Amino acid sequence: MASIFTKIINGDIPCYKIAETDEFFAFLDINPNSKGHTLCIPKKEVDKIFDLDEATYMGLMAFSRQVAMAIEKVIPCERVGMSVIGLEVPHVHVHLIPLRTMEDAKFTSKDTLTPDEFQEVATAIKQAL
Amino acid sequence: MASIFTKIINGDIPCYKIAETDEFFAFLDINPNSKGHTLCIPKKEVDKIFDLDEATYMGLMAFSRQVAMAIEKVIPCERVGMSVIGLEVPHVHVHLIPLRTMEDAKFTSKDTLTPDEFQEVATAIKQAL
Repeated sequence: MASIFTKIINGDIPCYKIAETDEFFAFLDINPNSKGHTLCIPKKEVDKIFDLDEATYMGLMAFSRQVAMAIEKVIPCERVGMSVIGLEVPHVHVHLIPLRTMEDAKFTSKDTLTPDEFQEVATAIKQAL
Repeated sequence: MASIFTKIINGDIPCYKIAETDEFFAFLDINPNSKGHTLCIPKKEVDKIFDLDEATYMGLMAFSRQVAMAIEKVIPCERVGMSVIGLEVPHVHVHLIPLRTMEDAKFTSKDTLTPDEFQEVATAIKQAL
């Protein structure tokens, strides 16, 4: 069965899209630790990041860097953190999280955004790419 | 002033070393989320990961992948997670964390190891490289 992320890539589930290449896709996390929290994924459906072949892993890291630098330009924060956990959705995803305090890195407190706010954030990051 | 990590690289502060190249260095986190928690750093002292030049960033990611794959071989866990936060030490460091549950990714609960256990873990990971 297709992962929830494959359904997002295919447009079967809507998302606030940030960027797309032949191999990778970036969109806003709908349950963000902080405003601007973005997920970067390979289109290839692989569960664990270190099971990716080296070229795909390196491509994902380069793609994530580009997206992170765009986030840093438009979202006020101390820095953008990066996290790969993956115990919940079995499809590799890199969390890019605008950090204000250590709490934002812990996946415990969450920010609430309206659809308009999500769209505004997505547009701003896209324009900074 | 040299960061605490530069002092570790220079041998002024002891560590349980895992790997070293001309540009990068890996050692056990002395306050681990879980057994096998490792830090991978560039020797170049830069505060924020996305301020690294692209070649150093990509090199650090490739180095971290090699270390993570060695950790996965010898430390029982669901998978190895990766996290870059950096609000505490102003010298880029990639956390590689053997994850059993989501808690291990949160930097809230910590494992306690004896010096002998740290040494045993470091030796096992080194041999798996």
